[in-house]
Amino acid sequence: MAEETLLYEGKAKKVFATSDPGVVRVLYKDDATAFNGEKRGTIAGKGAINNQMSNLLFRYLEEHGVPTHFVEEISERETLVRKVEIIPLEVVVRNIAAGSFSKRFGIEEGTPLERPLVEFYYKNDALGDPLVTDDHALILHLATADDLAELRRLALAVNDLLVRRFREAGLILVDFKLEFGRLPSGEIVLADEISPDTCRLWDERTREKLDKDRFRRDLGGVEEAYQEVWARLKGGVAR
Amino acid sequence: MAEETLLYEGKAKKVFATSDPGVVRVLYKDDATAFNGEKRGTIAGKGAINNQMSNLLFRYLEEHGVPTHFVEEISERETLVRKVEIIPLEVVVRNIAAGSFSKRFGIEEGTPLERPLVEFYYKNDALGDPLVTDDHALILHLATADDLAELRRLALAVNDLLVRRFREAGLILVDFKLEFGRLPSGEIVLADEISPDTCRLWDERTREKLDKDRFRRDLGGVEEAYQEVWARLKGGVAR
Repeated sequence: MAEETLLYEGKAKKVFATSDPGVVRVLYKDDATAFNGEKRGTIAGKGAINNQMSNLLFRYLEEHGVPTHFVEEISERETLVRKVEIIPLEVVVRNIAAGSFSKRFGIEEGTPLERPLVEFYYKNDALGDPLVTDDHALILHLATADDLAELRRLALAVNDLLVRRFREAGLILVDFKLEFGRLPSGEIVLADEISPDTCRLWDERTREKLDKDRFRRDLGGVEEAYQEVWARLKGGVAR
Repeated sequence: MAEETLLYEGKAKKVFATSDPGVVRVLYKDDATAFNGEKRGTIAGKGAINNQMSNLLFRYLEEHGVPTHFVEEISERETLVRKVEIIPLEVVVRNIAAGSFSKRFGIEEGTPLERPLVEFYYKNDALGDPLVTDDHALILHLATADDLAELRRLALAVNDLLVRRFREAGLILVDFKLEFGRLPSGEIVLADEISPDTCRLWDERTREKLDKDRFRRDLGGVEEAYQEVWARLKGGVAR
């Protein structure tokens, strides 16, 4: 590529400008972090898996009416996406209690929730991405009330679709984090990635963890878990 | 009193049964705790001040249309109140950034908020009284959507009235915590207390802290601050 202007480097991705001002190139790295950057490491092959898995799922969501930033996969690790202004809220959807939710409310990991729960976190590393209420988001001008309603609507639609798609691959979607961006037109579209870095995925029979919790909690078999998820999704066959 | 059945002992109060099943007797203690009980101490005279100050403010709120649990003050430290089922949400109203809000969002203490902010915390010492969103409260069955709307309405009404009442006493109401209870009829009424334990109060001219932050932050002059607030409120004269 002739164009190499680095626009942004995050924990797991680099974003470069392209000759089209409305399009950027994302490069997925193998770097892994957890606990707001306190734990660092590398997961061999993660970049390629997360890139291809995100793209497979973005295409699937687009086919089912969810707008995303996806444009074109250009290599195992690189994708062209529409340039968006990222909304500074991490949108978490939970189907089953786990992680910070279990800890916050003393609810055993694995307890099903009676309905999917949407949470917003202020995307701010220096503050540790704190949970926010709707009123916090409004008073801090992180989003408008209309934005929050649209984020909830899209997040729940994505959840319905992903739960079904992962179930076909023998996986339980426990919870996941989404990020959304705004196009110049004002439209809100799904951005960032959908991968074992951003989803809790359990084997539907054994309930074995097949996601970044293996890295967070030093469970071993991290690379194998990412490969397993990707193999199952690509195959598209229930196991 | 002949009746001495202790129904509940909290950090700052004891609650006893009375011969009337719909009424309980509250005894205010001088014990002080902070940081979810990690810091403990005594503030001489606090019980008498918090009791009388709460009652003065409950009467004021009742006169202005806010239902409370208040029945009758029976001594410096003791009050009869209606027996309620406490709603397990601490309702915090903030006018100015301070305390956990300043820390959570990196906003300097003393920054005015553009409008009063209502927050709900799950009243659960073992979990450290975590912040909850509306969806958390609903999914954990802490309250109904109608309850949350009523708590917000009452909390904002109380805030308007208290801001005005404290201003007359030369005090800025920075933020405060309320608890509400449900009567057998289902009606939600203001319960617990309103005191320098539960309010951040600053001198309107010097912005000196005249509340439990003096105890939390080892600022000294704790007893004097409580006495000063009570003297000003009783006097009812701007200083």
